[in-house]
Amino acid sequence: MFKDIKEIENNLKLFFRIKKKEAKSFSNDIFKAISYLEDFTMRGGKRIRALLMILGYQAAGGKDLNSILKVSICPELVHSFLLIHDDIIDDDDIRRNGYTVHKSFQKKYSVKSSSDLAMITGDICLCYGLEPLIDSNFNSSFKIKAINKLGKIIKNTCYGEFMDVVSVKNNTSIKDIQKVHEYKTAKYTISGPLQLGAILAGSNDKILNVFDKFGLYLGLAFQLKDDILGIFGNQEKLGKPIGSDIREGKKTLLVLKANSKYINRRLGKKVSLQELNKIRKILIQSGSLEYSEKLIKKLINKARKVLADNKIPKKEKQILFEFCDYLNKREL
Amino acid sequence: MFKDIKEIENNLKLFFRIKKKEAKSFSNDIFKAISYLEDFTMRGGKRIRALLMILGYQAAGGKDLNSILKVSICPELVHSFLLIHDDIIDDDDIRRNGYTVHKSFQKKYSVKSSSDLAMITGDICLCYGLEPLIDSNFNSSFKIKAINKLGKIIKNTCYGEFMDVVSVKNNTSIKDIQKVHEYKTAKYTISGPLQLGAILAGSNDKILNVFDKFGLYLGLAFQLKDDILGIFGNQEKLGKPIGSDIREGKKTLLVLKANSKYINRRLGKKVSLQELNKIRKILIQSGSLEYSEKLIKKLINKARKVLADNKIPKKEKQILFEFCDYLNKREL
Repeated sequence: MFKDIKEIENNLKLFFRIKKKEAKSFSNDIFKAISYLEDFTMRGGKRIRALLMILGYQAAGGKDLNSILKVSICPELVHSFLLIHDDIIDDDDIRRNGYTVHKSFQKKYSVKSSSDLAMITGDICLCYGLEPLIDSNFNSSFKIKAINKLGKIIKNTCYGEFMDVVSVKNNTSIKDIQKVHEYKTAKYTISGPLQLGAILAGSNDKILNVFDKFGLYLGLAFQLKDDILGIFGNQEKLGKPIGSDIREGKKTLLVLKANSKYINRRLGKKVSLQELNKIRKILIQSGSLEYSEKLIKKLINKARKVLADNKIPKKEKQILFEFCDYLNKREL
Repeated sequence: MFKDIKEIENNLKLFFRIKKKEAKSFSNDIFKAISYLEDFTMRGGKRIRALLMILGYQAAGGKDLNSILKVSICPELVHSFLLIHDDIIDDDDIRRNGYTVHKSFQKKYSVKSSSDLAMITGDICLCYGLEPLIDSNFNSSFKIKAINKLGKIIKNTCYGEFMDVVSVKNNTSIKDIQKVHEYKTAKYTISGPLQLGAILAGSNDKILNVFDKFGLYLGLAFQLKDDILGIFGNQEKLGKPIGSDIREGKKTLLVLKANSKYINRRLGKKVSLQELNKIRKILIQSGSLEYSEKLIKKLINKARKVLADNKIPKKEKQILFEFCDYLNKREL
């Protein structure tokens, strides 16, 4: 499946070439903003959402690979919008091994203005995320269904983001955390893109439901893996400082399960390397890391079972199985 | 035309009843956020954009009044999204005679969290703005064209908003200001909604171009009137403190034409009533107020001429003429 990545990148580059021209006709300042946006988007190399959209299309019998490749950049653009606003919220300087958008604006503008300009740039990027779909060759009724789906994905992710911001301030249960993950990751990263593709192939509700279940299990696994990599991973591969989840006060399952006063006291604060090592030790000794790792395996197996039990073309089923393995082994 | 306002209000209320139910299924915090959003949206009583969308539909021969009434709330919801983000940027506490959304969150959350939560609430509201159109009875190809238009309206308004934020920091020419007004007001408030309605009636490009020209003249007039009311108006009718344009450092045509050191020094600062009176005096004595007022009349006449020169059903043409008069006389 990963041979399509180069094509996705090319489509993104082409899209931004046109957008920069459009921006230039407004003003040089907007041109600069769209250049930051392009740079930020092009640095995000996994393209999981675009790939899953293509895969969902093919699994539902779609044959127009050229058209689906063009619209597969939609969830990637939407992803940039969400990350830009997320970075403002978390006040993060680094993402994808480079400056976040609001940090880039700080070269020229004040901290407040940079945050404002990044918010607007995010809004613009959300509009961009609809355009390839609107302009595509698919028939109008499929397009309307896909736009409906994309709108719902964005809205539900925003609901999840809202709960995430509130949860940092409040006491949060494991159930709340799972709900955030369901909307902020599972539906957004896995089942949403798969369904978007399937809709454009004219798929029926049955396969959409299969993808929904599959995405729920795999998405939760994806998020738990993310949480582990955020503390035990490699900074370069992660693209942002290790331990930033702690600094942002995120109550991940990993943190909740450890139930450690030492860790809880450090939530929302910048941690030193020494403190990070201590946190890692606690997560290992409390059994929390092992708990999350076992849960990931269990969730991936459940996702595989959903695939095994349902009728999906052999080749695409195989690719989705491979995707499960990839998620299990991924280090970024 | 104003008899439709009650229907628009009812459709908005119904929409929010459904959305609050949806929000409640996520969490009580999101329910609260959507209640703030509802309150904020329901306080904005002019409904110019919704009315123009209905009028554009009828002027282009559309007959399904019930369907157009339902989707006419789209630009009103989009308007709430833009105002929420605009209020964060301007750090305004009051709008439409009540708290802005980020200010409402401050009852419970810190200033930073409130701004973050308002940003997300705005994002959610943008998604809401697409839903009535997606769910409507119009045929799919008209809906795609209308979504395309709505997306472009939002994007162009964001470009205008971006230039507006930058212009506060930079030296700005009258030409720049006019460009901001063209995108932030004319296309957004007047021609965009008219065209949205016309598109849903299956209109051809000719009438869309007429609306574009008409909207450009009338929108600039609308903005100039806004700028005047922002300094010479009535606080209760305006819904926010008089002089907030000065505090926000907005370089309006009114301010630029006066070319006054006294006013320029006060841009970006809170002004007392005494200072405001002095500013008013300068705007009068310098001839800047008169210049703007004359320009408004000239622009409205140009807009009327566009109508007179083009084929539009008699009844709708009459209503658009009345709308010109209304804009000329409006005090809010």
